[in-house]
Amino acid sequence: MKTCEGVIPIVATPFNDDESLDLKSLANLIRFYAKLGVEGVTILGVLGEASRLTDAEREMVIDAAVQTAQGRLPVIVGVSHPGTEATIEHCRVAERLGAAAAMVAPSPQPVPRDQVVFDYYQRVAAKTNLPLVVQDHPASTQVHMSVELLLRLAKEIPAIICIKAEAVPSPSKIAALKQGLAAGRPVTILTGLGALYGLFDLECGSDGFNTGFAFPEVLQAILGAHKEGKGDVARELFTRHLPLIVFEQQPGVAIRKEILRLRGLIASNRVRHPGAPIDPATAGQLKRLLDATFPSTDLTKPLNLGL
Amino acid sequence: MKTCEGVIPIVATPFNDDESLDLKSLANLIRFYAKLGVEGVTILGVLGEASRLTDAEREMVIDAAVQTAQGRLPVIVGVSHPGTEATIEHCRVAERLGAAAAMVAPSPQPVPRDQVVFDYYQRVAAKTNLPLVVQDHPASTQVHMSVELLLRLAKEIPAIICIKAEAVPSPSKIAALKQGLAAGRPVTILTGLGALYGLFDLECGSDGFNTGFAFPEVLQAILGAHKEGKGDVARELFTRHLPLIVFEQQPGVAIRKEILRLRGLIASNRVRHPGAPIDPATAGQLKRLLDATFPSTDLTKPLNLGL
Amino acid sequence: MKTCEGVIPIVATPFNDDESLDLKSLANLIRFYAKLGVEGVTILGVLGEASRLTDAEREMVIDAAVQTAQGRLPVIVGVSHPGTEATIEHCRVAERLGAAAAMVAPSPQPVPRDQVVFDYYQRVAAKTNLPLVVQDHPASTQVHMSVELLLRLAKEIPAIICIKAEAVPSPSKIAALKQGLAAGRPVTILTGLGALYGLFDLECGSDGFNTGFAFPEVLQAILGAHKEGKGDVARELFTRHLPLIVFEQQPGVAIRKEILRLRGLIASNRVRHPGAPIDPATAGQLKRLLDATFPSTDLTKPLNLGL
Amino acid sequence: MKTCEGVIPIVATPFNDDESLDLKSLANLIRFYAKLGVEGVTILGVLGEASRLTDAEREMVIDAAVQTAQGRLPVIVGVSHPGTEATIEHCRVAERLGAAAAMVAPSPQPVPRDQVVFDYYQRVAAKTNLPLVVQDHPASTQVHMSVELLLRLAKEIPAIICIKAEAVPSPSKIAALKQGLAAGRPVTILTGLGALYGLFDLECGSDGFNTGFAFPEVLQAILGAHKEGKGDVARELFTRHLPLIVFEQQPGVAIRKEILRLRGLIASNRVRHPGAPIDPATAGQLKRLLDATFPSTDLTKPLNLGL
Repeated sequence: MKTCEGVIPIVATPFNDDESLDLKSLANLIRFYAKLGVEGVTILGVLGEASRLTDAEREMVIDAAVQTAQGRLPVIVGVSHPGTEATIEHCRVAERLGAAAAMVAPSPQPVPRDQVVFDYYQRVAAKTNLPLVVQDHPASTQVHMSVELLLRLAKEIPAIICIKAEAVPSPSKIAALKQGLAAGRPVTILTGLGALYGLFDLECGSDGFNTGFAFPEVLQAILGAHKEGKGDVARELFTRHLPLIVFEQQPGVAIRKEILRLRGLIASNRVRHPGAPIDPATAGQLKRLLDATFPSTDLTKPLNLGL
Repeated sequence: MKTCEGVIPIVATPFNDDESLDLKSLANLIRFYAKLGVEGVTILGVLGEASRLTDAEREMVIDAAVQTAQGRLPVIVGVSHPGTEATIEHCRVAERLGAAAAMVAPSPQPVPRDQVVFDYYQRVAAKTNLPLVVQDHPASTQVHMSVELLLRLAKEIPAIICIKAEAVPSPSKIAALKQGLAAGRPVTILTGLGALYGLFDLECGSDGFNTGFAFPEVLQAILGAHKEGKGDVARELFTRHLPLIVFEQQPGVAIRKEILRLRGLIASNRVRHPGAPIDPATAGQLKRLLDATFPSTDLTKPLNLGL
Repeated sequence: MKTCEGVIPIVATPFNDDESLDLKSLANLIRFYAKLGVEGVTILGVLGEASRLTDAEREMVIDAAVQTAQGRLPVIVGVSHPGTEATIEHCRVAERLGAAAAMVAPSPQPVPRDQVVFDYYQRVAAKTNLPLVVQDHPASTQVHMSVELLLRLAKEIPAIICIKAEAVPSPSKIAALKQGLAAGRPVTILTGLGALYGLFDLECGSDGFNTGFAFPEVLQAILGAHKEGKGDVARELFTRHLPLIVFEQQPGVAIRKEILRLRGLIASNRVRHPGAPIDPATAGQLKRLLDATFPSTDLTKPLNLGL
Repeated sequence: MKTCEGVIPIVATPFNDDESLDLKSLANLIRFYAKLGVEGVTILGVLGEASRLTDAEREMVIDAAVQTAQGRLPVIVGVSHPGTEATIEHCRVAERLGAAAAMVAPSPQPVPRDQVVFDYYQRVAAKTNLPLVVQDHPASTQVHMSVELLLRLAKEIPAIICIKAEAVPSPSKIAALKQGLAAGRPVTILTGLGALYGLFDLECGSDGFNTGFAFPEVLQAILGAHKEGKGDVARELFTRHLPLIVFEQQPGVAIRKEILRLRGLIASNRVRHPGAPIDPATAGQLKRLLDATFPSTDLTKPLNLGL
């Protein structure tokens, strides 16, 4: 994988109702994303409930995803682990199984130090051939990476090809990163956080989306309009779907898995314990929101956004 | 103040460029809200940068707000303090100066205990004649109040008239609170969090808005449509303004203060250190967003939302 | 394992200088503890840097420890994992490899709820035959378990045989737990936190030590004196070694590993990245402290505390 | 105040049983410390429950302390406040009332940035004539100040005369600070954290104690022996009193206030809500510990440590 841009969905890890892996649904998801023409997929991120899997399950997920995506889509694999050696081992496994890149986030230390974060990335980069995506998501990592640190990482570690910019306020941070990156080798920036700040991030230089919003078609349309210079169309698309984006990015992955189920992509909306499943009231509210957002629409088919 | 519902804006505390209090702008704000016909105002909340004021400045703000609001609007005063006795003293000051109610949030303890939170509210209630609004905002307080605890507070402390529900996911928590409150005396629920989940909170039973979104006219229109049973209109209004709601609720109060300045309501957008002022890039992005949201509109006048 | 009391050291995971597992040193450690006559050992706790190991490495550690301990010592295995199913799988592996019990700590949730913690333990207990040790260590888990919750766990989940009480202030919490446990089936309480509050915990009812302090002989002597009613001797032993206890429990595991190296029990004091190794100044200070605490003593031999 | 070294106790704020200020007991405390010959006192720190006082109460405490200390002891005043302007105002009040120096800690920001912390200190220093003590206590501030940042503060802000080093591990951080400070103007380092690492901090270069341990005589004796080069005596004194130091530094201020009460220095051991008072079991355990540490000793008199 040479470059990381466009729409690269974060893939949920589907479970059966007994919480065992449902690799068939995973393959469905990947095939659906391939059909949409996205630029890649990322597995084993937060939405992928990676922190709730054993290493053996991780391998099964990587293998199934790569096998399904073969020749159609590059697969980026989340490999973050509190131990640097274990992150490296996760990278090796991902590489062996055919991953196109690895997504790496730092873990919190009792006394935060920029140099320790830098060493972490440098050690990982030294032991893998995979390109790296730096995930900057303090809400899940409790690690605050300054613009200076991120620019140093981008400058000094050639394996890094992308920053997934998920630190609020994301638009102004992306603007600062873009400015700092301008003179160096190409490192892209992707928008996460469920696309909550999607339009604003694009305006500030984001190169695309790397998030789990369950309608990647919408993100493709927004990005397409933005790249064609049709700012009004991008804004209109963003606005129209923003209630759904807001509703979906509520904490947890239950709402998103319910949408994927309603879209016919996964068999069960099960979330692994201690994560909570969707409650009936929220499911009902979601249903009404989907009906209002996509009236008379078969959600199991790729959306036709009328562009 | 007998009941707490409708649209009750959280009021910013305006500063001059040297960070001193600008009470003239504060009066402007209050008068503007009165002209809009809101049901009240809340001063000295998070948006009011209450934590950055001395006690003497708090008094000046309360006095100026109550004097301006006199006979037009009830003034709710944020009184939270890490010490229970000091919270009580803040209540006394607010009461003496003519406040209509007090907003109270708990503070974090080394070992969290529900009973300590309960005692906090009970002690405050025992020493003041003011009705109380319970602020449930873990993002700023680091205190997680369960539905059970909130219902116990509502049931056993008659001074409590309202819960400001700002714990995500807010819609499902509001639904649970509403159900639990149904059998008891009337305690209302108000939506905060910059109205990010405004439509969804209303659907779940919220009685109105108690937030700092800088266009209360929009919240009035949404609430009005909702109460008249015009769900589609409410949704349309929410959707149309949601990009602005999302942009505005980014961390910090700088964006909101800039909007208030652009609306001609405050003289300076200054935020008190260590809070950061708005940066030029963000100000530019905001300006474009406002132009797109309200084309050819004089923002210094109350909005005409064409209803 | 029917009961959990006495001195049960937490075992470090030794690494070679390249950070690979050093199972030979692990066997040394286990043999040494067996020679001391401790009541068991706990592997894969915080001192064991369990969070920095892959699952495959965990298995190697468990296997090596159980093989070495065979017939001499029960081995308790830390199995905590952010996912409940994965914790269960860790339990299964431990059970298959011959563990005597499993130590389980909860993981933090976005919205803390006692019932989720209870369900976690209940699910684990339902799927394993191993007795369970509940680790109550908010400093590492960010989960605050109230006395009420711990008593409910002890009462309703028969698999639980022990609470490792590491929530400050530990003496008063242990006293409250002991009182609550008195009427029920036997559940023991063990002292952790590097034995910092060792004497005080014993006075409040602790049944022994489950901590990584690198001189278990000292803890054995303190506990022995305490159980024989020789409070003065226990106090004198605690006092004499307290500077070392205090020094050793500084954050991180580097100091402890250096002591184990000086005792000839592990070949390298290496800590896995991002954990920091001991710096030369601290190593020098430790050396002087050891000389002062144990003058003219061969630390590679079990201590003779002159009792 | 030109220099900050020796033993400078942190002073508790005594309350009556109804939680009102007990200024008479405060004066008792100050007089007792003066009689001991300490180098100064610090009021309105964490032990002083400063965060639970109104501004008016702060003034009363400062005034009473300075009046009592007049001509005998310099009084350092804790002035930290989440708002920089309010910290400055606290400084002004302290200066006006006769304080000798101000102790200043930073407050946490949503996105931590060293420059904001630096600006905070620089702004405060620019507006006050008081010398400043930088309090580095992440456990209460949630702000991690690196050695680099602290050295920059010491170098660029001449008002800073002392760093209160309370970030664990404190010995190695003090060693690094001392080395960095060596070439510049004199800035002292004082030990806090209840003296838990007292001996180790002194070995690394600490210039004295600035903590609330209720027997400053012990700290004076340890420091005296250390400065005379009698390391063995210092170690013996530290060791003998370490159980009490450990017991006393448990979270909260209740134990310390009970000791001050037992010493006849304050009338009530009351802690302000939501702080918890000492429970009877802990009070009993403390009593036994004091009896064992100081057999047949009248604690209301300055200790005679037999040196």
